[in-house]
Amino acid sequence: MTRAWNFSAGPAALPEAVLRRAQQELLEWNGSGASVMELSHRGKRFMALAADAEARLRRLLDVPDGYTVLFLQGGATQHFAQIPMNLAGPEDHADYIVTGHWGEKAVREAAPYLDARVAATSVDTDYLRLPPRDAWVLSPGAAYVHYTPNETIHGVAFRDIPDVGDVPLVADMSSNILSEPIDVSRFGLIYAGAQKNIGPSGLVVMIMRDDLLARAGRPMANIFRYAEHAANDSMLNTPNTWGWYLAGLTFEWLEGQGGLAAMGQTNARKAGTLYGAIDGSGGFYRSPVDVPARSRMNVPFTLHDPALDAAFLAESEDAGFLALKGHKAVGGMRASLYNAVPLDAVNELVKFMRDFATRHG
Amino acid sequence: MTRAWNFSAGPAALPEAVLRRAQQELLEWNGSGASVMELSHRGKRFMALAADAEARLRRLLDVPDGYTVLFLQGGATQHFAQIPMNLAGPEDHADYIVTGHWGEKAVREAAPYLDARVAATSVDTDYLRLPPRDAWVLSPGAAYVHYTPNETIHGVAFRDIPDVGDVPLVADMSSNILSEPIDVSRFGLIYAGAQKNIGPSGLVVMIMRDDLLARAGRPMANIFRYAEHAANDSMLNTPNTWGWYLAGLTFEWLEGQGGLAAMGQTNARKAGTLYGAIDGSGGFYRSPVDVPARSRMNVPFTLHDPALDAAFLAESEDAGFLALKGHKAVGGMRASLYNAVPLDAVNELVKFMRDFATRHG
Repeated sequence: MTRAWNFSAGPAALPEAVLRRAQQELLEWNGSGASVMELSHRGKRFMALAADAEARLRRLLDVPDGYTVLFLQGGATQHFAQIPMNLAGPEDHADYIVTGHWGEKAVREAAPYLDARVAATSVDTDYLRLPPRDAWVLSPGAAYVHYTPNETIHGVAFRDIPDVGDVPLVADMSSNILSEPIDVSRFGLIYAGAQKNIGPSGLVVMIMRDDLLARAGRPMANIFRYAEHAANDSMLNTPNTWGWYLAGLTFEWLEGQGGLAAMGQTNARKAGTLYGAIDGSGGFYRSPVDVPARSRMNVPFTLHDPALDAAFLAESEDAGFLALKGHKAVGGMRASLYNAVPLDAVNELVKFMRDFATRHG
Repeated sequence: MTRAWNFSAGPAALPEAVLRRAQQELLEWNGSGASVMELSHRGKRFMALAADAEARLRRLLDVPDGYTVLFLQGGATQHFAQIPMNLAGPEDHADYIVTGHWGEKAVREAAPYLDARVAATSVDTDYLRLPPRDAWVLSPGAAYVHYTPNETIHGVAFRDIPDVGDVPLVADMSSNILSEPIDVSRFGLIYAGAQKNIGPSGLVVMIMRDDLLARAGRPMANIFRYAEHAANDSMLNTPNTWGWYLAGLTFEWLEGQGGLAAMGQTNARKAGTLYGAIDGSGGFYRSPVDVPARSRMNVPFTLHDPALDAAFLAESEDAGFLALKGHKAVGGMRASLYNAVPLDAVNELVKFMRDFATRHG
C-alpha cells in the first residue's frame, strides 16, 4: 500500500490515524457486533457516539452557551437555499459579500427565497483581492450578512472576522473550519460541508445561535426546518451515521494534536512554507492572489510558462503528489493544505517544485 | 471479532463481503494512493466508479430506456417534500395511499407544496391490512399517485404493483428495493434511502421517468431540482462518495448472488421460515399483520405474554441476535430480513425462538 501526498481540494485528505482506526473497527465497532454503519442511529451506542462528537466539536471551537450544533446533509450548496428559507421571510432581504465562486453560488441559490443583495464583491479583480470593508454597502434591516471566509477555488481568505454590527453574520466555513481558533460568539450561523476539514462528503456541520432557530421563515416541509432538526438532535431523519462517526474520530484526533491553537500554528507554517517557495522561485511559480488575502487552506499558483503545466502535473503525480491540478475556473495548480495534510507533505512538495524549476528553468 | 446476527430495521446489515472489501481498500483504493473518501468526485477514478455503480443498478433492476438514475442525499424524508416540489405546481393535487407511518409522513411533508389527498388509508385497521384497491378514491387530474410498497414499521407490503392508469406512480421503496425483481416500467418514480438494502445512510437512490424531469415544478433553488441533478450526473454538489462506493460494491455483490431473481427466492424463503415459526408456535408468537399483506422485509411479531418481552430481548442479545426490539409505535419484536441478512441468521433465530418458547412456555 502506498499513500500519496494528497492535496485534493475536497473530498480531501483525512488523518491517516483516523482512517486506520476506522479500518480496524469497520466490521465490528465498539463491542456492538456490527459495523457502525449497520447500527440504528437511535440505539444507545450510536446516540453516545453522536453526543461525544458534538461535545468534542464544542470543546475544540469553544462554542459558547446559546448555540445549537447540528449534523445535517445536503452539502453547503443545499444550505445556500435552506438558510434564507429558515432565517428570512419572502419579503425580507439579506446582504451577501461575494469573494469567489462559492459566494456567487450562495447568492444564486438564495435568490428564490428572499432579496439576496450583493453588498460587496471583488469580481472586478477576478477574485484576487478582498473588497475593502469601507466599500461594503450593507442594507438597513438585512435578515443577515453572508460571507465565505475562505474561497476554495480562488484561494482568497479573510484573516479577520468582519464587523457587521448587530446583524447576524452567517459564514460558509466549508474550507477553513477547524483550521485555527475562531471566536464563535461573533457569528449568528456557521456551516461547513464536512469533506475538507471534518470527514467524508455527505455531512454538513452547523453551529447556530439559538435566537435564529426561532425565526419563523416561511411555510415549508419540516425536514427543511433547522428548529425541527434541533428539537430532534439532528435525528429528524436518519443522519449520515458513517460521516458523523468519522467526524467524531477527526475531532478526537484534533484534540490529540493539541487543538485548534496548535493546528493554526501548523497551518500557518505549512502555508508560509509553500508561499515562501512560490515567492522565492524567481518568478518560476507565481501566486496570483493579493498577499493579505492569501488563503492558508487553498494555494493556487501558476507556472511562468503554462506550456510546462502538463509536465508539472505528470511529474508530480509520478513523484507521489495527488490532485495538484488547479480548478478550471482559475487554471494552473492548486495545493489544498487542510488539517490532514502534514507539514512533511508540504516540505516534500516544495522540494519537488524546486527540483522541477531547476530541471525546466 | 464477533459479528452478531443483525436484524436492524435501518441503518441495517451490510453484506459481510462488502464490508471486508471496503476494509481492505480503506486506506488505498484502486491504485489511487488515497482512500476513496479522499478523492475528488470529479476525478477520473471516482467518475468511473460512479458510472459503474449506476450501470450495475440498471442491470439488476433491468431499468428500461427513458429512465434517469440519480444518487442524492437527504433520506427519503427530504424527498417526501422534494417530489411534490418537482412534479407539481402549488395549485396541483396528488393522491397518496397511506398504509403506515412512512406514508403518513410522506403526506405531511408534501402538504406545504400541493394538495396532498389521502386517496386510501388503512389507519382504521391500525395499518394491519392494506386498503382494498376498489376502495381507493383517486382524483382526476392528480399529478401522481404516491405509495409505500413496504412499510418498515408496520410490516405491511404490497405483493403487486397497483394499477393507477396513466397517472405516474411514485413509490418509496426504501425498505424493499432490490429485494426481488420489479417491473420498473410500471413506475414514474422510484426512490429509496440507501440504509436498508443498498448501503450506508446518507444516500438516496432515485429512478425517474424522463418525462417527469421536464415538469416545471415551481420557483426554487437549483439544488432542489431533479432536472439539474440529472443534467449534472448527480454531481450538482459533492455527492456522498463513500455511500456511492458502498452502493456499487453492494450491487456487485448482488450480481454475484445471482441477481434479484435469486434474491427474491432467498428472501421468500427467509420470510417463510420466520412466519412459519411464528404461526407454528401454538400462539406463543403472533404476527398481527393480515396474511396477504405480510412484508418479507420487516416482520413484527408479539409474544403471547408481553411480560416476557424483556427476557426475550435480553436472552436474544446474549445469544448473538441484534436489534429485535419492535418499533415503539407497534411494540413487541421486529426482525428485518433485508438482503444482507443470510438465511442462516433466520434459521438461527427460529431455533432460538423455539428454545425460548420451550423454556418460557
